Amino acid sequence: MRIAELSRVSGVSPATIKYYVREGLLPSGVRTHRNQAEYSDDHVSRLRLIRALVDIGGVSIEAAKELLTLLDSGSLSAREALGHMQYALGGRRSPVGDEQRETAARDVAALLERRAWRIHEDSPARGALIDVCAALLQLGHADVVAAMDDYAGASEAIAATDLALVGSETGLERMTETAIVGTILGDTLLSALRRLAQEHLSSTLLPPRDGAARATGEV
Amino acid sequence: MRIAELSRVSGVSPATIKYYVREGLLPSGVRTHRNQAEYSDDHVSRLRLIRALVDIGGVSIEAAKELLTLLDSGSLSAREALGHMQYALGGRRSPVGDEQRETAARDVAALLERRAWRIHEDSPARGALIDVCAALLQLGHADVVAAMDDYAGASEAIAATDLALVGSETGLERMTETAIVGTILGDTLLSALRRLAQEHLSSTLLPPRDGAARATGEV
Repeated sequence: MRIAELSRVSGVSPATIKYYVREGLLPSGVRTHRNQAEYSDDHVSRLRLIRALVDIGGVSIEAAKELLTLLDSGSLSAREALGHMQYALGGRRSPVGDEQRETAARDVAALLERRAWRIHEDSPARGALIDVCAALLQLGHADVVAAMDDYAGASEAIAATDLALVGSETGLERMTETAIVGTILGDTLLSALRRLAQEHLSSTLLPPRDGAARATGEV
Repeated sequence: MRIAELSRVSGVSPATIKYYVREGLLPSGVRTHRNQAEYSDDHVSRLRLIRALVDIGGVSIEAAKELLTLLDSGSLSAREALGHMQYALGGRRSPVGDEQRETAARDVAALLERRAWRIHEDSPARGALIDVCAALLQLGHADVVAAMDDYAGASEAIAATDLALVGSETGLERMTETAIVGTILGDTLLSALRRLAQEHLSSTLLPPRDGAARATGEV
């Protein structure tokens, strides 16, 4: 199909398609004339994957490119893919809570020890966790950091489901793709589920605005 | 303190501080001379909150402004704040998986019914969940959508911890701030914990690259 047709089918504008090709996220079409190229269903699938990662998963074009390169390399196990993906996305660092970073690092190390999680010293996720804990401590939310054990228990259940999904795939490319898509879109899925569960539970657990009066029986 | 001191203490450049004031995220300092303003510790705290939301939580300047306006209004219960926050952050919509949206909407409705979650019809989180499910279906990952019950169970445990944290705060403003900070930075915290749990579990559950050979005893 021509680029106009590819644009119609995928819902991505021709200008954006050309941008993705230039940036190396999407393979070029097969050139048929000087100003024309032919695209295939593989281009449609790839465009859908790019849009899902960028629009739904919220990853940057640069990170999407790294993930797709990883996927295309076809040389990694799903386990290696998960690891590489963490490194591809682990770039964000922030100066927020620098003074609290040592305390946060100790809290995280203690948590990993309590849960007996074997984590590489340079793991980007460990760095990200320390960053967010440092920011929480600086904002005066040590209580959130103290609740990490509860969150870690739920996260282990989530990761077990993640790995069961990846493990049920056959074929290396499909396993790698599931690891990428499941983790990135999974973050969005889990964030939405968390808010829905909050909405449901808040109607029963949190007092309404005049709740204090009601709770003491002053109705 | 002057803007240079505020910049030094907060680690935010004077240009960015002025940008936040212009955009309405940070109150102006008290003007002392024609080109000088005096800032207080409240400005330092507010700058830390802004940087945490934007740098660690990944929210846009526009969404941060809505959240801070909400926080400043001081007129909401924590329950209302959680609800309003969802609407403030619920703007992202995507055309990915439009064809699958009806199926996704049915899947989500069935999940909410199974869990007996009472959710408003217009809930942005419901919309976000339908969006991500539609994208997953279009990418051929119906298995991830089918695993939503497992994810929903873990999310309910997480939300219970969230609400316990909010409920343990005293004072309306503090409860609202905990709802905002805990939910936004909590997403980053949970995403990091999920990756750490994946790293830990993948070393035991996922086969290494030559795992197939090992599993059948061909060592």
